[in-house]
Amino acid sequence: MVVKVYGPAYASAARRVLACLIEKEVEFEMVPVDLIGGEQKKPEYLKLQPFGMVPVVQDGDFSLYESRAILRYYAEKYAAQGTNLLGKNLEERAQVEQWLEVEGQNYQPHIYTLVLQLLFFPKMGKTADEKTVKENEEKLAQVLDVYEERLSKSKYLAGDFFSLADLSHLPFTHYLVNAMDKAYLIKDRKHVNAWWEDISNRPSWKKVLEF
Amino acid sequence: MVVKVYGPAYASAARRVLACLIEKEVEFEMVPVDLIGGEQKKPEYLKLQPFGMVPVVQDGDFSLYESRAILRYYAEKYAAQGTNLLGKNLEERAQVEQWLEVEGQNYQPHIYTLVLQLLFFPKMGKTADEKTVKENEEKLAQVLDVYEERLSKSKYLAGDFFSLADLSHLPFTHYLVNAMDKAYLIKDRKHVNAWWEDISNRPSWKKVLEF
Repeated sequence: MVVKVYGPAYASAARRVLACLIEKEVEFEMVPVDLIGGEQKKPEYLKLQPFGMVPVVQDGDFSLYESRAILRYYAEKYAAQGTNLLGKNLEERAQVEQWLEVEGQNYQPHIYTLVLQLLFFPKMGKTADEKTVKENEEKLAQVLDVYEERLSKSKYLAGDFFSLADLSHLPFTHYLVNAMDKAYLIKDRKHVNAWWEDISNRPSWKKVLEF
Repeated sequence: MVVKVYGPAYASAARRVLACLIEKEVEFEMVPVDLIGGEQKKPEYLKLQPFGMVPVVQDGDFSLYESRAILRYYAEKYAAQGTNLLGKNLEERAQVEQWLEVEGQNYQPHIYTLVLQLLFFPKMGKTADEKTVKENEEKLAQVLDVYEERLSKSKYLAGDFFSLADLSHLPFTHYLVNAMDKAYLIKDRKHVNAWWEDISNRPSWKKVLEF
């Protein structure tokens, strides 16, 4: 059964799911959703995703949304196939979950705000709010200081293995490094930068960017 | 081995963990952290939790932070003991994960902002920002409209079983209903209100509130 992924392949949360499916060697096909035309707020789509967001996966009769929930489902369903993304035991999985929560709760809010304000606002003809940018840049820097310390002791966030926790950082960090003048936040931190070079050069991520 | 939970028992994220440990019949003891005195930002504590937040659990040599990661760890470690909080198969667990992500990403940001502005700001001698309150109240109402629809079809968020997804809503919703003039957001929605009456009357939650 080919997994259907609803959403434009360029959407950050969809990219997170695609990277996971490729790492797990799961066949998928994209079902386009026209975000600019507002298709995600139409009744037909809201039946699949009541909050009007992408992505959604459909796998036979089963459908699921929230990108990080989708990551966990496929990482566990195909535990023995492709890259192991959850660690080898309960304690390693707990470390994966801890850093996946750090990504969702501590990293994402600040980096999302920066990307919104500095990358998407100009495209929408809106002006970034300087105070908001400054605050979120400072908070993201503090989070990255913790990452720098952590990554000086283990190669990846959850330990010496690449996991969902690292993978989940790819889409927004890609914007930060490649599409804005804030790459220094990553580049100026030796261990964070080495980690970024490693995870962003994985074949799965390069393939996601080709879509 | 008795699990040590660092944090004041009144902290919302600590309450989330305590409710889970009680449901899973896991023995624990509290290790007080003096948040008002700033103990969570001291070097000794930052070794346990580098972001300076509570709670942390210590379980023998193993320690873990991020409340939702702790929930998952104990729900899985003691799968056969106490209440089953993860569902009976991968697809049920995926639904639990989906709604736990909805709680963390869609519900928590708005309810946290309301609690901060309307409950904690006055105690700190600060004034709530009217625009921020209005925006977050509207967004929370929209999220709760989706919950109302969902809960008209299943007794709990992930299906007809109480799970981590429901449990994770307890601490902040408790404030909303009992400590602010915003209870109407829950009370005026028939199915959300019935769900709230159910989950907030669980013996585990009543015990948490006694600490």
